[in-house]
Amino acid sequence: MAAYFAKCEEKLGFVPNVLKAYAFDMAKLEGFVAMYNDLMLAPSGLSKLEREMIAVAVSSVNRCYYCLVAHGAAVRGLGQDPVLGELMAMNYRAARLTKKQRAMLDFAEKVTNASSQIEEEDREALRRAGFTDRDIWDIAAVAGFFNMSNRVASATDMRPNAVYHGQGR
Amino acid sequence: MAAYFAKCEEKLGFVPNVLKAYAFDMAKLEGFVAMYNDLMLAPSGLSKLEREMIAVAVSSVNRCYYCLVAHGAAVRGLGQDPVLGELMAMNYRAARLTKKQRAMLDFAEKVTNASSQIEEEDREALRRAGFTDRDIWDIAAVAGFFNMSNRVASATDMRPNAVYHGQGR
Amino acid sequence: MAAYFAKCEEKLGFVPNVLKAYAFDMAKLEGFVAMYNDLMLAPSGLSKLEREMIAVAVSSVNRCYYCLVAHGAAVRGLGQDPVLGELMAMNYRAARLTKKQRAMLDFAEKVTNASSQIEEEDREALRRAGFTDRDIWDIAAVAGFFNMSNRVASATDMRPNAVYHGQGR
Amino acid sequence: MAAYFAKCEEKLGFVPNVLKAYAFDMAKLEGFVAMYNDLMLAPSGLSKLEREMIAVAVSSVNRCYYCLVAHGAAVRGLGQDPVLGELMAMNYRAARLTKKQRAMLDFAEKVTNASSQIEEEDREALRRAGFTDRDIWDIAAVAGFFNMSNRVASATDMRPNAVYHGQGR
Amino acid sequence: MAAYFAKCEEKLGFVPNVLKAYAFDMAKLEGFVAMYNDLMLAPSGLSKLEREMIAVAVSSVNRCYYCLVAHGAAVRGLGQDPVLGELMAMNYRAARLTKKQRAMLDFAEKVTNASSQIEEEDREALRRAGFTDRDIWDIAAVAGFFNMSNRVASATDMRPNAVYHGQGR
Amino acid sequence: MAAYFAKCEEKLGFVPNVLKAYAFDMAKLEGFVAMYNDLMLAPSGLSKLEREMIAVAVSSVNRCYYCLVAHGAAVRGLGQDPVLGELMAMNYRAARLTKKQRAMLDFAEKVTNASSQIEEEDREALRRAGFTDRDIWDIAAVAGFFNMSNRVASATDMRPNAVYHGQGR
Repeated sequence: MAAYFAKCEEKLGFVPNVLKAYAFDMAKLEGFVAMYNDLMLAPSGLSKLEREMIAVAVSSVNRCYYCLVAHGAAVRGLGQDPVLGELMAMNYRAARLTKKQRAMLDFAEKVTNASSQIEEEDREALRRAGFTDRDIWDIAAVAGFFNMSNRVASATDMRPNAVYHGQGR
Repeated sequence: MAAYFAKCEEKLGFVPNVLKAYAFDMAKLEGFVAMYNDLMLAPSGLSKLEREMIAVAVSSVNRCYYCLVAHGAAVRGLGQDPVLGELMAMNYRAARLTKKQRAMLDFAEKVTNASSQIEEEDREALRRAGFTDRDIWDIAAVAGFFNMSNRVASATDMRPNAVYHGQGR
Repeated sequence: MAAYFAKCEEKLGFVPNVLKAYAFDMAKLEGFVAMYNDLMLAPSGLSKLEREMIAVAVSSVNRCYYCLVAHGAAVRGLGQDPVLGELMAMNYRAARLTKKQRAMLDFAEKVTNASSQIEEEDREALRRAGFTDRDIWDIAAVAGFFNMSNRVASATDMRPNAVYHGQGR
Repeated sequence: MAAYFAKCEEKLGFVPNVLKAYAFDMAKLEGFVAMYNDLMLAPSGLSKLEREMIAVAVSSVNRCYYCLVAHGAAVRGLGQDPVLGELMAMNYRAARLTKKQRAMLDFAEKVTNASSQIEEEDREALRRAGFTDRDIWDIAAVAGFFNMSNRVASATDMRPNAVYHGQGR
Repeated sequence: MAAYFAKCEEKLGFVPNVLKAYAFDMAKLEGFVAMYNDLMLAPSGLSKLEREMIAVAVSSVNRCYYCLVAHGAAVRGLGQDPVLGELMAMNYRAARLTKKQRAMLDFAEKVTNASSQIEEEDREALRRAGFTDRDIWDIAAVAGFFNMSNRVASATDMRPNAVYHGQGR
Repeated sequence: MAAYFAKCEEKLGFVPNVLKAYAFDMAKLEGFVAMYNDLMLAPSGLSKLEREMIAVAVSSVNRCYYCLVAHGAAVRGLGQDPVLGELMAMNYRAARLTKKQRAMLDFAEKVTNASSQIEEEDREALRRAGFTDRDIWDIAAVAGFFNMSNRVASATDMRPNAVYHGQGR
């Protein structure tokens, strides 16, 4: 993992604090990184920006300071749009989105707030908006992942690297 | 993973449906299994039964049918206590627990319902109950993990293997 | 009431603890038994199983340990379906129900969670699903009754007879 | 029951609409009247006014128009206090109550809003305020009863007799 | 402001306690009175009664004792309808309203409970019910104002003049 | 008001969109500006920065995009602290505040979320933290004001001036 941290330093200029938090146990760090990289970086019907939009919209519901800061920066950067990150963090309903992206975020919010009430008609709405069943899995999996990491970050008082704040403004 | 599935068949007598659901993509299956096995089976200050109790108490808040069935069976089995699984699934406050276990589940519930309001005094309460900081990480991580998998299961309509229902009664 | 308790012993093999709880005052016990028997056993457009399904779905929202155990057993027994009782106790939305039964439980849940928002259109939905106005009364009355007894049981820490747990598995 | 209705006419000057609503079936009417009379009129450690205060405070949480009107009038009348009825219907926290009455209403509200979270310490608080275990049963039973009748009234659109509005002003 | 208080005495027979509460600072009193008079008394597509109906329906959600008493009296008086004030204070859904008034109160309630979820389709519903964009502003502004004054009154324990209770019965 | 707008242009470099939104009616604009200026700029036991912190913390609960953007910029600017604005907008509990400021924001949040439950003990907690009764009024009034303007902004889809986003980063 030293190699991985070095790669972080090289690519990002710093090691994200979440990785340092997990680094007390290699199995946990590797598990987290493997799942994160697969979900956020592997090929998917969702663009990387869309996956980050889900991350921030979910973190906004859960009010996770760490994730709002780190992934808000990612949305601003990937979207080349300083305002889009703010909109995701504050209230995605205020953003001017495509119908498809709006359906994606409505589903992600329901996954966050009321997953026990999700039914076939919710998935059907995503299909009508143009998503495949594999895409639906990815929306659910990304939304689910941030419902996990928001909680781990808040429960352990994780703090974001200060550098995120100025990125992509 | 064929080997892993075979091992499931051998040890459990069946392959849990959650694994079949993830099996459309080896990277996702391996990531899920690695994180799950580390959290639920690796050495920890929490017993395996306690980790399953957290799993069920969290799934009860989220009303996840899959996880309540599968992990309710695990609590019944590991605890050699057919009633304990029901109590976790229905209302952990009705269970006669040690003060330490009760503090653990109160924290897991707050992680589930109101993670943004967790503060140092919540962690302090766990320390007073006898948990180390590493234990607190594990409670947060297990509670966080089921907040993820409850949502993925509900969002994709995962169905538990029927065999769980009769186990440990 | 001694006769009634004897009849319970004969028919059920035990006296339900709720009856023992009320037995400190004959007027209260008789009032409870009269209302209960009328609602759950008298002729109605709803089958006995359907009334028990309402009982469990309502108790699930209210997380009443006593009623989930006692009436979960009743659903398993009357329905000859060990899984149906679990589904009602965990999340009725996950059950494969007829449209009519689903409408019945959706109404019972709204009666439980948001009765002040019930309006004519909610009753109209039940009529469209095939219920008469008398049936609607019965759904409301059974759902109302368990909103009462869930609260009395939880407020006084009533405990179910252990025998229920194994019934109908 | 004709005799009972005649007695209502004689004592109150009218037959409460809730009784007319139940009168389609004698067993239901008798069951309701027996339970109601026992709870609200039989000897108890709680005064009749206190039981009506619980009725209105519970109905306020549930926003039941029928019960707020009918039992608001009862509080105004029994208390000889036109303002007390308004306070119970609007926000019991704004009322200047004895500590004992305040504890009673706090418990009744928790029975209404969060019965699954009631534990021994809640009952202990009532004992410290001066209530016996029998009194606690009565608070729970009255609060439970109005959680039932609020829901039946709202679910069936019951309307209060107009005469209540002017009573006790 | 002495003149204004004298005018209150003359017109109403008393000085509303809210004005006395603000009178410790003339700038605050004048600001409050100016905004209040403009919103509630100036020409608008909403009648004065309708604006008072919004005031009470909003105060009902917020359970503000001061505003429910003072503006409940206003609805009873302006509407020449002793029951309408009660309906607004208890549950506006139980009132028999025009479709237009109902749409107005549904919007005011959403402004109160879930303003972040208001979107163009909510405003569109008001337009379909017959409201202009200026009317929509007025509904939002009156609902917003009482969301402010409900909170100031509750946070500072403001108490209504006793005289309101008997008005318009 | 042309003079006022000119003064805005001179001092801020732009006219805030909220003022343009109110400008369709001079009485409304003047009322809003008078109340705003008194609350946010007049002498008070609370510093201007503290009043802006309340504004943002309240707007965060209400997820008001307009106010989070405009007043988030004010906190960043007045506090000379780019991170403090983010903390107020995301989760004030994550900020390292003085005990006094924390008590102030806890009260403002309760005013926002549960004003009907505020009682003397809540005000007493503020006094213990060092606030006078006049300060308590100011906290309540500022929190109340943003509960109004958050709702008016969301209900009418007000949009912040783009210039705010880059300020104070």
